[in-house]
Amino acid sequence: MDDDVPLILTLDDSGSSASAPLDDLDRDELPNENGGSYDIINDASSPAAGDCCAQQSSARHNWEMNYQEAAIYLQEGENNDKFFTHPKNAKALAAYLFAHNHLFYLMELSTALLLLLLSLCEAPAVPMLHLGIFVHATLELFALIVVVFELSMKMRWLGFQTFIRHKRTMVKTCVLFVQFIEAIVVLVRQTSHVRITRALRCIFLVDCRYCGAVRRNLRQIFQSLPPFIDILLLLLFFMVIFAILGFYLFSPNHSDPYFSTLENSLVNLFVLLTTSNFPDVMMPSYARNPWSCVFFIVYLSIELYFIMNLLLAVVFDTFNDIEKRKFKSLLLHKRTAIQHAYRLLITRQRPSGISFKHFEGLLRFYKPRMCARERYLTFKALNQSNTPLVSLKDFYNFYEVVGLKWKAKRNREHWFDDLPRTAFLIFKGINILVKSRVFQYTMYTVVAVNGIWILVETFMLQGGNFFSRNVPWSYIVFLTIYGVELLLKTTGLGPVEYLSSGWNLFDFSVTLFAFLGLMALAFDMEPFYFIVVLRPLQLLRLFKLKKRYRNVLDTMFELFPRMASLGLTLLIFYYCFAIVGMEFFAGVVYPNCCNTSTVADSYRWVNHTVGNKTVVEEGYYYLNNFDNILNSFVTLFELTVVNDWYIIMEGVTSQTTHWSRLYFMIFYIVTMVVMTIIVAFILDAFVFRMNYTRKNQDSEEDNGIVLEKEISKEEVVGIIELYKRSSAAAETAQLQKIVSQMDKYG
Amino acid sequence: MDDDVPLILTLDDSGSSASAPLDDLDRDELPNENGGSYDIINDASSPAAGDCCAQQSSARHNWEMNYQEAAIYLQEGENNDKFFTHPKNAKALAAYLFAHNHLFYLMELSTALLLLLLSLCEAPAVPMLHLGIFVHATLELFALIVVVFELSMKMRWLGFQTFIRHKRTMVKTCVLFVQFIEAIVVLVRQTSHVRITRALRCIFLVDCRYCGAVRRNLRQIFQSLPPFIDILLLLLFFMVIFAILGFYLFSPNHSDPYFSTLENSLVNLFVLLTTSNFPDVMMPSYARNPWSCVFFIVYLSIELYFIMNLLLAVVFDTFNDIEKRKFKSLLLHKRTAIQHAYRLLITRQRPSGISFKHFEGLLRFYKPRMCARERYLTFKALNQSNTPLVSLKDFYNFYEVVGLKWKAKRNREHWFDDLPRTAFLIFKGINILVKSRVFQYTMYTVVAVNGIWILVETFMLQGGNFFSRNVPWSYIVFLTIYGVELLLKTTGLGPVEYLSSGWNLFDFSVTLFAFLGLMALAFDMEPFYFIVVLRPLQLLRLFKLKKRYRNVLDTMFELFPRMASLGLTLLIFYYCFAIVGMEFFAGVVYPNCCNTSTVADSYRWVNHTVGNKTVVEEGYYYLNNFDNILNSFVTLFELTVVNDWYIIMEGVTSQTTHWSRLYFMIFYIVTMVVMTIIVAFILDAFVFRMNYTRKNQDSEEDNGIVLEKEISKEEVVGIIELYKRSSAAAETAQLQKIVSQMDKYG
Repeated sequence: MDDDVPLILTLDDSGSSASAPLDDLDRDELPNENGGSYDIINDASSPAAGDCCAQQSSARHNWEMNYQEAAIYLQEGENNDKFFTHPKNAKALAAYLFAHNHLFYLMELSTALLLLLLSLCEAPAVPMLHLGIFVHATLELFALIVVVFELSMKMRWLGFQTFIRHKRTMVKTCVLFVQFIEAIVVLVRQTSHVRITRALRCIFLVDCRYCGAVRRNLRQIFQSLPPFIDILLLLLFFMVIFAILGFYLFSPNHSDPYFSTLENSLVNLFVLLTTSNFPDVMMPSYARNPWSCVFFIVYLSIELYFIMNLLLAVVFDTFNDIEKRKFKSLLLHKRTAIQHAYRLLITRQRPSGISFKHFEGLLRFYKPRMCARERYLTFKALNQSNTPLVSLKDFYNFYEVVGLKWKAKRNREHWFDDLPRTAFLIFKGINILVKSRVFQYTMYTVVAVNGIWILVETFMLQGGNFFSRNVPWSYIVFLTIYGVELLLKTTGLGPVEYLSSGWNLFDFSVTLFAFLGLMALAFDMEPFYFIVVLRPLQLLRLFKLKKRYRNVLDTMFELFPRMASLGLTLLIFYYCFAIVGMEFFAGVVYPNCCNTSTVADSYRWVNHTVGNKTVVEEGYYYLNNFDNILNSFVTLFELTVVNDWYIIMEGVTSQTTHWSRLYFMIFYIVTMVVMTIIVAFILDAFVFRMNYTRKNQDSEEDNGIVLEKEISKEEVVGIIELYKRSSAAAETAQLQKIVSQMDKYG
Repeated sequence: MDDDVPLILTLDDSGSSASAPLDDLDRDELPNENGGSYDIINDASSPAAGDCCAQQSSARHNWEMNYQEAAIYLQEGENNDKFFTHPKNAKALAAYLFAHNHLFYLMELSTALLLLLLSLCEAPAVPMLHLGIFVHATLELFALIVVVFELSMKMRWLGFQTFIRHKRTMVKTCVLFVQFIEAIVVLVRQTSHVRITRALRCIFLVDCRYCGAVRRNLRQIFQSLPPFIDILLLLLFFMVIFAILGFYLFSPNHSDPYFSTLENSLVNLFVLLTTSNFPDVMMPSYARNPWSCVFFIVYLSIELYFIMNLLLAVVFDTFNDIEKRKFKSLLLHKRTAIQHAYRLLITRQRPSGISFKHFEGLLRFYKPRMCARERYLTFKALNQSNTPLVSLKDFYNFYEVVGLKWKAKRNREHWFDDLPRTAFLIFKGINILVKSRVFQYTMYTVVAVNGIWILVETFMLQGGNFFSRNVPWSYIVFLTIYGVELLLKTTGLGPVEYLSSGWNLFDFSVTLFAFLGLMALAFDMEPFYFIVVLRPLQLLRLFKLKKRYRNVLDTMFELFPRMASLGLTLLIFYYCFAIVGMEFFAGVVYPNCCNTSTVADSYRWVNHTVGNKTVVEEGYYYLNNFDNILNSFVTLFELTVVNDWYIIMEGVTSQTTHWSRLYFMIFYIVTMVVMTIIVAFILDAFVFRMNYTRKNQDSEEDNGIVLEKEISKEEVVGIIELYKRSSAAAETAQLQKIVSQMDKYG
């Protein structure tokens, strides 16, 4: 049951040398008996426990299974998967492993995307992408079959009981079923019926592993809903009261179309809430009696300036609260995961901690792409005590430490240190020049001058052919300066260090684009000309000068992933509404369609001749239609911005029924929820970040947290021995290289 | 130098009885030597310190001066006046007292209001209020002379040195000087010249004592400006870049008027930031190439949805920070004030605290309208220790304790307890009925039914004469029910208790108004009819049912004073802009004025005959003008709401110069600042309040802080003795009454 392999290092557990963690590099202890769900098959595969080698291999096998299960626990902890979905036996484990890798995830994602993209080609299709019914129905059926396959894999892993208890999966299954039937009906009938259920396709995307952030957003939105709805009711209540009031006050005025009936009154006050009909809705009554403006001012003050802000406040408050609680529960979940994993990694002989060997085994499953050096460093960073074992308390930091990026701290600063003396001096000079303040400020000045130049130059141009054949000399001058700067910086800092800064990367790409633009101009290629106008973006460099901007821009970049997920969430809502809109309103709006409505002007398209000239009078609003999914998206974006949205609403309403307004109003409310949450999120993240920087004001440069760990040569040699025995040739070679480097630089 | 009046109570300082604070009721100690700025005159007035009586009166006089100075210190602490404006000698004190009472404050306020209101009657006057130049110039001169008087009073108090160092006062003086000269010029020339300086009249209002909140708001706005401007620059930077980009992309399209020149491009992107030209600005390019919508979507996403929210975040953050710092500095200032006052109230003999006698003397000056009982209770509430003296540590709570409202805790619950048995039982029954849940929910149901009734009734009406002679029966039925409820509640709870609740007060006034409306209907008085439509407001009672609404509505009421001050601040900005607008744009806009501009339709007023009917085509926008100050305010409100504001801007611009746009843009930015701060304030206050209620969730009813103090009869008698000796007849009588009441109820 104990060490069968000869020990190289002493077994002195009390040793506190730097190489202490390597003490038990190659013991083959049996795993702790209370851990491991997959012991059964191990026991089955090695019933004869008498033979030393068999036992050892059985122990090793056992350990491998334990490593894997611990890694799964840690993954579940990281992904916030509940533990009741933890694979319970070897079969479930196989299914789990099958359903938890990037290949499977990618399949999930691409199926979902395919299903979503199908709406580009279905019935009211984008003209260029139109496909026959047979084609797109077959594609859909294929995608749905893939989803069925994915779901069956998931069921194999979860087991039937857990599967039907998992709400999201059950909803997905139902949607899948409906979609399946509908696709078959479409195939059989060879004609598309009204398929609003297509709006539910989003659930396939939401359920993807890669869309976890979207799922979280949706959950947060639904959790923020109750207080939101409460305040919304208050808002609507005031709206109804004012509608009644407005009806009584203004309907005697027959030149006022806005309050002629209670319905009109309500609709117009709803639109007024979005301010998009503002002075107009007031003008008829204002023209009759100037004091009627009081009604509108009071309404807007209460509804728009007070209750709407209250709405933001309530959502912000709820959001904050949910974030706090979520953080707590996530932390607890991770802790539980770590406890589970820990239980699987300690041995019966030494229950006080995890040795490096087992830790390394865990990491092999948890982060297969981590190199040996990093694994060891992670272990050392985790191990706060001087003992060779990582205790549970230390192991709690696992998630933080495993995310660290390790960088060798070299003695050599520059990439050109190895070059001959003369070259070294030249590069050193460039390096000093490039890092000097004078150089930086000169460049800022050049950028500023360039910016003003562009502004003045553009101001001088008066329409027409500004892309003449001869390239302006200023363009060449500035580009040359930028080119030289780029060259100097690259040589002075080395390409790797140069491109490691986001700002430099930005400079580089803008300059590259500008060069491309120059070439496009030189070769007279029209489609490339727009690159020229990217130049002013280079001025963003100027904002580096002030600390607040650096903060704000850094925050911008940090918020970007979360913002993107929020944007994706919004897009999912868009998709649902676009499908519904297309099913109901496709082809409804066209030039001169709404001549009976109050917004006829905006939909007009008249082509009349005045004298001998043809004058085209265009209202353009017929372009804001639901004729295909792309148009719908643009229309929905316009509805999100809410200005003049009532023109779109009234246009559609005049061609359909009064009830169409519900669609637009519900859309407004939904986007209001999402937008309010986006604002709340930005507020929250920004205030957090500002408080953070205020606390860390002393450290001017924000480098994140830096953790330094030294490794002695002895330790590396020790690790090599370990790997040699576990016959990981590639990693041994890598480590050998480090040793030789260490030898070289001492 | 010591007690010359015989003592009634023992001098036992270590006594811990409830009446301990009265121990030294009538010693005539001399004030502590290190306090008091006004000693000189006391010393001067009583040079002969030999006579016992003279000495006593001198001491008393001395004490009176000390009380007054301490009260002044405490006032300065409360009003956040700096101590260097503290009156330094007797003359300054007289001036201080002259300039610090409500009469003077009212004079200040009314002068400032008179000056502001003058703009109703000056040159572009409101038609009905037009006054001759001679009249309004004389009025102005009169008001300015009053301001001069006020300022000279202030100078007498501050002294010349402090006066010219006080920034706000100096600015006020300069403005006053300019206004004076201008008023005289107007009087002499008998014609109004361009008087933009009238916009500066606001400073007279801002400087009023009663407008302290506005001053604070303005300070906060100016303090929030630096970060605000930083982000604004970022916003403008992106705007310029997109303007250049847009110009290059869209100016080749000749049917696109929005990007024809760089100036147009910039202006339209600025307007786009407020979204008020949104789909329109996109439509010409969108019609030509559908992908051009990307430009607008990216622009709006960056500018509107990201940077504008960042702006809110930055302002919110700064606002929070300033609030915190302000709170700290206010607290420190109050503490210093309390220290100053304390130093003046302790005696040489007993420097460890303030006795009740001196505390009472202070309160006589600090809160003259406080009755004797409350003074004693305040003292008892302050005194945490059992000694008869209030130590400095206890005295630090002065501001909190002095604001408390004391209410006798009576044994009798109801107002009808003294009535004969039969009446008592009847009223008791009503009381129980009124307080029962059943009664409350019945009333809620009635209100809900009434609300739905009104809604349906109104929905049935189709325009025209809904105020017929015969009053609808439903109105009478519901009003009867409300009347009965009101009667029951008033008799059951007693009028005082009934009206002490804000909700009941609301019910009462709405019911009263409804009765008035009924009478108006009965007597056929047209102008009263609008009261009928107030009825639905009674539905607000329904919101009492849910806790969140109670919270929100309570928060609404609590925020109201601060919101009002913010509104006033906004009005001050409005005033400035209105004056400037009137001076430049009065009479510029009229029907059919802007036929050459792109917004001609909105200013059209055509009266043409189609067949035999006269059709009036009105654009109404000519009503949004700067022809007098009231019109200007309405126009500015429309600009604040920002929808379609570019129509007003373009109308004015087409009649004046391009530079007029600056006025509108600056106004937009200013209102944006104020609005953002209002939002930040609401957010901050609301989140604070929600966290507060979340902490105090256990106590369902929020009664504020309740502090109970008992007074024994002996203590009251003791105080009476004290007052008898200081010959305050009125207060003695009041206290005697309390004693007799105590005797009655035991």
